[in-house]
Amino acid sequence: MSKSPSNPKGTRDFLPLELSKRNYIINILRKNFKNFGFSEIETPALEKTSTLLGKYGNEGDRLVFKILNSGDKVKKADISSLKSGDLNSFVKSISEKGLKYDLTVPLARFVSQHQNEITFPFKRFQIQNVWRADRPQHGRFQEFTQCDADVVGSNSILQEIELIKLYDTVFNQLGFSDLVIKINHRRILKELACYFGAGENIVEFITALDKIDKIGLDKVLEQIKLPTLDFSEKEFRKLLSAKEFDLGYLKKIFSKNSDSFFALDELNQILSYFSANNLVNEIEFDLTLARGLNYYTGTIIEVSSKTNQRIGSIGGGGRYDDLTSMFNLKNMSGVGISFGLDRIYLLMEESKLFPDYLDKSFEFMVANFGISNLESLAPYVDEIRNKNREVFIYPDNVKLTKQFSFANKHNASVVIIYGENERKEGIVTLKNMLTGDQSSCQLKELVHILTNS
Amino acid sequence: MSKSPSNPKGTRDFLPLELSKRNYIINILRKNFKNFGFSEIETPALEKTSTLLGKYGNEGDRLVFKILNSGDKVKKADISSLKSGDLNSFVKSISEKGLKYDLTVPLARFVSQHQNEITFPFKRFQIQNVWRADRPQHGRFQEFTQCDADVVGSNSILQEIELIKLYDTVFNQLGFSDLVIKINHRRILKELACYFGAGENIVEFITALDKIDKIGLDKVLEQIKLPTLDFSEKEFRKLLSAKEFDLGYLKKIFSKNSDSFFALDELNQILSYFSANNLVNEIEFDLTLARGLNYYTGTIIEVSSKTNQRIGSIGGGGRYDDLTSMFNLKNMSGVGISFGLDRIYLLMEESKLFPDYLDKSFEFMVANFGISNLESLAPYVDEIRNKNREVFIYPDNVKLTKQFSFANKHNASVVIIYGENERKEGIVTLKNMLTGDQSSCQLKELVHILTNS
Repeated sequence: MSKSPSNPKGTRDFLPLELSKRNYIINILRKNFKNFGFSEIETPALEKTSTLLGKYGNEGDRLVFKILNSGDKVKKADISSLKSGDLNSFVKSISEKGLKYDLTVPLARFVSQHQNEITFPFKRFQIQNVWRADRPQHGRFQEFTQCDADVVGSNSILQEIELIKLYDTVFNQLGFSDLVIKINHRRILKELACYFGAGENIVEFITALDKIDKIGLDKVLEQIKLPTLDFSEKEFRKLLSAKEFDLGYLKKIFSKNSDSFFALDELNQILSYFSANNLVNEIEFDLTLARGLNYYTGTIIEVSSKTNQRIGSIGGGGRYDDLTSMFNLKNMSGVGISFGLDRIYLLMEESKLFPDYLDKSFEFMVANFGISNLESLAPYVDEIRNKNREVFIYPDNVKLTKQFSFANKHNASVVIIYGENERKEGIVTLKNMLTGDQSSCQLKELVHILTNS
Repeated sequence: MSKSPSNPKGTRDFLPLELSKRNYIINILRKNFKNFGFSEIETPALEKTSTLLGKYGNEGDRLVFKILNSGDKVKKADISSLKSGDLNSFVKSISEKGLKYDLTVPLARFVSQHQNEITFPFKRFQIQNVWRADRPQHGRFQEFTQCDADVVGSNSILQEIELIKLYDTVFNQLGFSDLVIKINHRRILKELACYFGAGENIVEFITALDKIDKIGLDKVLEQIKLPTLDFSEKEFRKLLSAKEFDLGYLKKIFSKNSDSFFALDELNQILSYFSANNLVNEIEFDLTLARGLNYYTGTIIEVSSKTNQRIGSIGGGGRYDDLTSMFNLKNMSGVGISFGLDRIYLLMEESKLFPDYLDKSFEFMVANFGISNLESLAPYVDEIRNKNREVFIYPDNVKLTKQFSFANKHNASVVIIYGENERKEGIVTLKNMLTGDQSSCQLKELVHILTNS
């Protein structure tokens, strides 16, 4: 029994104010996911380790939280593995389940398992927690919420267009108009690596490129260690720095391998679409966008603030061929985007984008003058609540100053006063907590006055 | 890599239709919790084992899912404990965290930890998953959602009144009007046990009483094994069967110990309040209501269907003194109720209480006649979506019959057809998927027509 109890490191308690702000974001996400025709699903926190392991690389496998088998099953612990230092086998002998590490592998499992219960293209969104046994540090959590929208089973470029539009719509509704949505294509990056003689080391190439925002182009060039090139370093610099999407120029550059033409045409279609249908935020082709070492094989997308770059990307996604082949369902292309809830929260907090009303624990407070007074007021309180307005009834008949102070701490708008005097006269006194003004109204007018202002 | 992947036994994947029905319930719960002045909080899935263990009894401790320590930490496995069969010590040597087992212990931990950041009375609600390593069986899950509303730090009987009103309001909005809300008081049960000479065996007494619905009064009397009584078995039967709350009679029965008078007065206050302010559902005093072997010390409440008793209670709660004393915060009375999401779902399904619109994956589908047509239609689609109506754009320009079939499978209301002909004429064809009728409208009238019907 702990004397000063606390939540585990790397996890968070959400107090009402922070949670109402998080839910404000989530509600806008959920509503727009639905408006764009995505359906919500949920998968359990617990997955079989056979589902989880081998999908995220060795480092990922290490970071999956493993659940200890229950009861007597731990007796099967493989002590010899433990002694020989084969920790993986030891863990395997006492654990069959783990906590989900992301929403993508569970999606692939879900689609493969339920392929006969769903229709393709399957547009789904999922807003759920995931767990990673990362070392807890500032801004990195062991338990956090992912918000993903994906389309499975459609190769149409329309999906990329819709997902970019979805980003723009959501971020616009959250109050952002200074974001940039960057796009690139993995096939082009692959061609690029080949041209630079780094085709064998595509992973290192992408890793280096990925750091361009942090270390700059010069350092990237150093790390890539350009071999003899078909074109000069000057040309390379020009290419990487170009933010304009010049289809003709790029086709000329990549003319040796027409495989990249398909990718260039896809990007061209996306960009043309949005030059006809403008976004609120900016869309930009960025040949240096790499999106780390993940499973993308087609378009890649990333969203970040133009004015606050310190926070980094607040959303990202892309297309991955054969999403479900890891679970033996072939030829299912997936394309999806993710919203970085914690970073969006930070950026909104810094940009003061949360509406003021979120500060209120409740809108109205009824002062307490004893239960018989409350009993007469009850039908009116019911009516106000039925109009989806929040009413807190103060629990005890104590000094009014104490009750006002409570209302103040919770940023209530109005305190409803219905004491003996009011009851005799059939009126209600209303105290505006912002101005301190008091006014009276007829009891029977109360609901109308409070809910039509 | 599993060939036929599946979620672990005892867990569930929620497909869109089932999830939209669950969320329909949750949204009504959440909205009403807020209307009644409760604030939402969240606590992590992971808790320290020191927080979890020792709170739920030995059986509960066994059912807490334990998380294996990460990485090299498992090397500290206490093999000697394992060999000697001391599994608890073995588990302790490789696990420091577990998954939360309910929302009440985490609430107590939260209140104790954050006592200086919150104000009392603290009215909070929480809708989150909990985990129990129970043997999976029909209708019993290892991962399920609890929906709790509690008030911490108020002794006022007004809280019980508000919680009962909350039950009635939520269930009424969900479509129930044939429920019974039963109330009783733990102090009265205690007195009752004393009177029957079972004061020493209060646990067995309550356990027996708790089964009255299943085994009947006769079997209960057998199990209690009444000793010599102050009053006859006939009197006892009469007492337990009485559904009318007769304060005078009860005070006479319990006259030997005035401690129960307080409890009787509380129940009397609650029942009087609701005879002045009628509920939609029924409220009933039930001296046989026991609410199992949990921590309640005051009022106890339970909700069930009068017409469908097979499903059992769909909600329950009560008052517990000293909620937070397990975490060294004294004198914090707690009172709360819980909604049984899975059972409510079942009962609503059986009673056909879910609205039809939940069957729709989306309301409108735009048929695909190529990207340039979609490009011209896009501003109108944006407008419809901005009015929070769901639009799915079919991804490929394929045969219209195939597109209609997709719309049908998803119960779309209307398919929006904007092909070459429509484009030339500046019109849109609308196919009503319920009747099969087609009609036309001007393109610029589209939004108005679809969103004002």
